[in-house]
Amino acid sequence: MDGRTLSNRQTGLLIFVIGALAGLTGDACHVASGTTEYLWDGVPTIWRSAIWFPVLVGGAVLGAALAGRRAGLPARTRDRRDAGIGIAAVIAMYSLTAALRFEDMTVSVVLFSALAAAIWFCWDPSPGALAIALGAAILGPVAEILIVQLGASQYTAPSDGLFGVAPWLPCLYFAAGSVASGLWSALQR
Amino acid sequence: MDGRTLSNRQTGLLIFVIGALAGLTGDACHVASGTTEYLWDGVPTIWRSAIWFPVLVGGAVLGAALAGRRAGLPARTRDRRDAGIGIAAVIAMYSLTAALRFEDMTVSVVLFSALAAAIWFCWDPSPGALAIALGAAILGPVAEILIVQLGASQYTAPSDGLFGVAPWLPCLYFAAGSVASGLWSALQR
Amino acid sequence: MDGRTLSNRQTGLLIFVIGALAGLTGDACHVASGTTEYLWDGVPTIWRSAIWFPVLVGGAVLGAALAGRRAGLPARTRDRRDAGIGIAAVIAMYSLTAALRFEDMTVSVVLFSALAAAIWFCWDPSPGALAIALGAAILGPVAEILIVQLGASQYTAPSDGLFGVAPWLPCLYFAAGSVASGLWSALQR
Repeated sequence: MDGRTLSNRQTGLLIFVIGALAGLTGDACHVASGTTEYLWDGVPTIWRSAIWFPVLVGGAVLGAALAGRRAGLPARTRDRRDAGIGIAAVIAMYSLTAALRFEDMTVSVVLFSALAAAIWFCWDPSPGALAIALGAAILGPVAEILIVQLGASQYTAPSDGLFGVAPWLPCLYFAAGSVASGLWSALQR
Repeated sequence: MDGRTLSNRQTGLLIFVIGALAGLTGDACHVASGTTEYLWDGVPTIWRSAIWFPVLVGGAVLGAALAGRRAGLPARTRDRRDAGIGIAAVIAMYSLTAALRFEDMTVSVVLFSALAAAIWFCWDPSPGALAIALGAAILGPVAEILIVQLGASQYTAPSDGLFGVAPWLPCLYFAAGSVASGLWSALQR
Repeated sequence: MDGRTLSNRQTGLLIFVIGALAGLTGDACHVASGTTEYLWDGVPTIWRSAIWFPVLVGGAVLGAALAGRRAGLPARTRDRRDAGIGIAAVIAMYSLTAALRFEDMTVSVVLFSALAAAIWFCWDPSPGALAIALGAAILGPVAEILIVQLGASQYTAPSDGLFGVAPWLPCLYFAAGSVASGLWSALQR
């Protein structure tokens, strides 16, 4: 888990690929379970996702990682092992949102809020990571609401109570944003 | 997550408030999911709980924290970041009991026993913390059985198999008691 | 959690007993929930398991621990507290496979893959532990497929899609193999 230092180009590429693969994997859970549906015909698909989805997620994760690098995050040193734990925790949480899609929304939002808070506390409980996590928790769902408004995809009931997207979606973005904020330094060296 | 040292009064108040809020949050999951029901009319409610519930939980958490302080717990140093992880883990477990309320009770009791053991091992696997956790695992369910006997609330089937309360309830109290036992020292400084 | 050093005989016996008890506990969840069924009549049972099951699991865990000892694992020092966390995490995951038995298999496999990866990263993310975990992820399900072919037990739909056993079964063996690989050194001293 130590290995050599990566160049900036390699680090950025690795983070984009990790984000895209995590997005593909989690989205496969959402589509397979019927939590979400793609509505546009004729768009090429990878696994279960429209091709634009992993590109957007990879880009968003890279953007959060670059913002975190600029802000000097993580405030506590995180290494590749920590990154592995953090990425696995976010993917586990992503798939658990699919598993619990019919759950009462109070229960889901409390559960995923607590898990998101635990991930932030474990990873880097600093104001900087909090700012990026909160930014992700706002911008991610807003972007998905716009995608739903465009008619490209939809969340199915009962997971559509937040302007057409799932009420627990900000929690998932918060967790992903927390980990992404420190990924550059954790993976580069 | 460092910040300044708290006075004894501030620490006690903070622990009471954390306990009351955690109780309110978890209880909202139990009530929203139909795991539990309040039966007395005319009692003021906060969120989903009768007003006496968060007061009892806050007091119990403070009591466990004071007992832990007297016993010199935690045996290993725990800081505010650790406290955040521990509190989030207990709330996540609390909401998960609501999410899995229809699960076979063997499965639930094994799952929540394992999670409670993991929380104790992570937080402070000392004999002192074990004693307080076991005390909570006995006293908490006994208190809830009395409340059910009084007719103030009830657990619904199939989560009522332990003298009217849920068979996994001791696991939840064990986890909460573990963390509470070291909360004073973790939060004060 | 410190205590005295164990002899080789004591360590081996302890690991066998831990494996057998973890197997009994997890299997009780699978049988109680109907995830698996025993088909041979007249075999003595312990709790919910045919008597040969905990013996096989205890032996397999001991075998993995001995292989890990020979390979000098774990690569990072793990103590008895770590062992407690790891064992509890594997049992929690085992019972969660029972709780989510009707879940879409894409969701289950992603969830349990992520949890297995997180356990490996937390416990000992070394090539040696990976080799033993992967060996367990292959040999364990193959052994269970043979047992199903013999007619001794079966997995019920929809948890029977991998040659008669559950598609998430390799994830569970991977997690168990990860932790078992470092158990000798963690428990002996």
